[in-house]
Amino acid sequence: MVHALFLNCTLKYDDTESNTKALIEKAQGLMEDRGASTAYEHVLSYDIGFGVTSEQVHDGDEWPELLEQITAADILVIGSPIWFGVRSSVAQLVIERLDGTYEDGDPETGQYPLYNTVGACIVTGNEDGAHDVAANTLFNLSHLGCTIPPNADCYWVGDAGPGASYIEADGDKHLYTNRTARLLAENTIAMAEQLRENPLKTNLNEIEEEARQVSE
Amino acid sequence: MVHALFLNCTLKYDDTESNTKALIEKAQGLMEDRGASTAYEHVLSYDIGFGVTSEQVHDGDEWPELLEQITAADILVIGSPIWFGVRSSVAQLVIERLDGTYEDGDPETGQYPLYNTVGACIVTGNEDGAHDVAANTLFNLSHLGCTIPPNADCYWVGDAGPGASYIEADGDKHLYTNRTARLLAENTIAMAEQLRENPLKTNLNEIEEEARQVSE
Amino acid sequence: MVHALFLNCTLKYDDTESNTKALIEKAQGLMEDRGASTAYEHVLSYDIGFGVTSEQVHDGDEWPELLEQITAADILVIGSPIWFGVRSSVAQLVIERLDGTYEDGDPETGQYPLYNTVGACIVTGNEDGAHDVAANTLFNLSHLGCTIPPNADCYWVGDAGPGASYIEADGDKHLYTNRTARLLAENTIAMAEQLRENPLKTNLNEIEEEARQVSE
Amino acid sequence: MVHALFLNCTLKYDDTESNTKALIEKAQGLMEDRGASTAYEHVLSYDIGFGVTSEQVHDGDEWPELLEQITAADILVIGSPIWFGVRSSVAQLVIERLDGTYEDGDPETGQYPLYNTVGACIVTGNEDGAHDVAANTLFNLSHLGCTIPPNADCYWVGDAGPGASYIEADGDKHLYTNRTARLLAENTIAMAEQLRENPLKTNLNEIEEEARQVSE
Repeated sequence: MVHALFLNCTLKYDDTESNTKALIEKAQGLMEDRGASTAYEHVLSYDIGFGVTSEQVHDGDEWPELLEQITAADILVIGSPIWFGVRSSVAQLVIERLDGTYEDGDPETGQYPLYNTVGACIVTGNEDGAHDVAANTLFNLSHLGCTIPPNADCYWVGDAGPGASYIEADGDKHLYTNRTARLLAENTIAMAEQLRENPLKTNLNEIEEEARQVSE
Repeated sequence: MVHALFLNCTLKYDDTESNTKALIEKAQGLMEDRGASTAYEHVLSYDIGFGVTSEQVHDGDEWPELLEQITAADILVIGSPIWFGVRSSVAQLVIERLDGTYEDGDPETGQYPLYNTVGACIVTGNEDGAHDVAANTLFNLSHLGCTIPPNADCYWVGDAGPGASYIEADGDKHLYTNRTARLLAENTIAMAEQLRENPLKTNLNEIEEEARQVSE
Repeated sequence: MVHALFLNCTLKYDDTESNTKALIEKAQGLMEDRGASTAYEHVLSYDIGFGVTSEQVHDGDEWPELLEQITAADILVIGSPIWFGVRSSVAQLVIERLDGTYEDGDPETGQYPLYNTVGACIVTGNEDGAHDVAANTLFNLSHLGCTIPPNADCYWVGDAGPGASYIEADGDKHLYTNRTARLLAENTIAMAEQLRENPLKTNLNEIEEEARQVSE
Repeated sequence: MVHALFLNCTLKYDDTESNTKALIEKAQGLMEDRGASTAYEHVLSYDIGFGVTSEQVHDGDEWPELLEQITAADILVIGSPIWFGVRSSVAQLVIERLDGTYEDGDPETGQYPLYNTVGACIVTGNEDGAHDVAANTLFNLSHLGCTIPPNADCYWVGDAGPGASYIEADGDKHLYTNRTARLLAENTIAMAEQLRENPLKTNLNEIEEEARQVSE
């Protein structure tokens, strides 16, 4: 059974109601229906400092605790609202902290902790920006070692300008969004199962050594 | 043996010298060393019209010919220069024409022609913009059905402002770029071999039907 | 009386019906109501080659003709559809060709032909991507010498996924889009009048010379 | 005398050494040479909560204090490092909090507090991403009411991959960056002086009312 972790990067400190949470829950349910185990974390329920390391940046920094869950997952799903056309500062903060994992590679293979993890992205906004959020987030995850299966993004946005968000707009009845949620669930699970059975095996240390010889 | 197709989306009509071609050739060589067969196409050597369909948009439109090669490949690598911080108009034209493949799905499964293809990206510029080119291009490919393995982008850029490009700047001695070329080669081949043995099998028609029931 | 040029960068070769044209016409009408003269050009009615120079890239290349109109305008409005989350290949082609204007500066001041021109952007898509199109396009125009007044973008997009575009969706009744069209019209005209009376006067040659002394 | 505020959106809590600060100081000095008064704020020296309002989001939230300085400036310069190809989470947080100013408009004209402010952007990174940071940031500022003069961005980035940043790489000797710093200083001051003498006067309330009539 593969395990999926959903991170809600909403700007709301209170985890009671969040549009991003609502869409995450839909995808989460679909993954469980397909036999995956899942977990949900509301990032702002943690005290996480700004920085680019895996270690605490201040006393009480709870990043290491969240990171442990991230590296234990087979599927990592970043959920973010759109603000000013791009991902939230909280989502950006999470990605920045993951920079530290570049240093946490396996000594023998050099490979990053997220290698052989599957990456995905869930986005909500009242309008425009989902492509930018998903493109950057999935690309960053691929740099961090993740594999991105087809159609690994699920989003809802309304039409141009201010307006109702996912919950208020009955986004859970939106055909396209429901279709993307199903695609995300199926493709991430299929890929995670495949990577569990046949993990990718590139040795970063050897690559580095070979590249060095050519470059000199 | 898996097969990789490299598309050079340079703005130069003449295929003699192109920085993007030079970096493509490096990656191409590394793939052949690892046992893949490869092909290279210079997009502007074809007469390709603007549009969003797989059919000819005018008499003599050679898109169908190029598309045949694209759908036959196990690994599709889009090579693009950076202009004004983003991918070239030629790269954008190629992506736009691929919109037509959404309509060319398998009748039974509904799946797109690029499903179970591996996507990758090669970028050169005299400065800044490689992340934007790669993020958007890989994301678009993932929407079109491709799987994006870890570190599927290889790029060279110089420091801020105008200046020498890849060839003139001896980019082939650049450690980081050489490292990313090796990573791209290894990860795309490993993923393509895996998808050949165990193709992903999501049925888009069933997904569509289920999503419709929830949405009504 | 200030003069505004609207470029329609649709992928349609035929200028009869285009969503981007429809929204352009609305903004164009609002500008004329406010006393500006306007012109409209459908880029694909011209034969424009790929490249980055102001000179013809092949016999019959009509870029110089279009460029003449661009440099004569007080307000330059790029109209683009969204394809795959970003601006059209035709819009990108226009921006790439404007790269040539960096070389066409006034010998004494070094300033680019678009200095003291006002830049603006109009975007239509059936969903998502307007912020990316406008942000990149306005930024590129600012590099080319344009001034970007407040709220210089006007767009219409529908909700997530495929669906009706501007015309079919009665976008001309969309409050937010109408508001942005009015803002674009007012702010671009006010800024153009201001720059006509008090042009910005930075001397690029002097800047270059001073910067060189510091850099050595 | 016009007044420029520089915000350093580095991820470093300690304001002692920061590449972004170093480049800000260069631009700041050039502005003072040209007769502007300037101020510098290190955002993480403030306790600023996540959110989208001008009011405190928790006890001790110091956003209102920073906002007062922002709205008092004639020129607002956002300084940001690049992380994962985009602006820092701290820069994004600042932009998100500015969302609150949409509600703080002048009752009579409806205009936002940043109307007639000049926007600019300073970016440093060890590689790639400056265009994305500047394009999004300047675009967001233009939505918030700012005018963006020509060449309002100044940046330094090194070549592809990890490596030395601005200070270590002697970025202060980099010709292109020095040129952009001068352009930013001259153009922002010239535009700010112009907007002080002849402020733009669009009445948002009237625009809203007119747009409503058309939309109904």
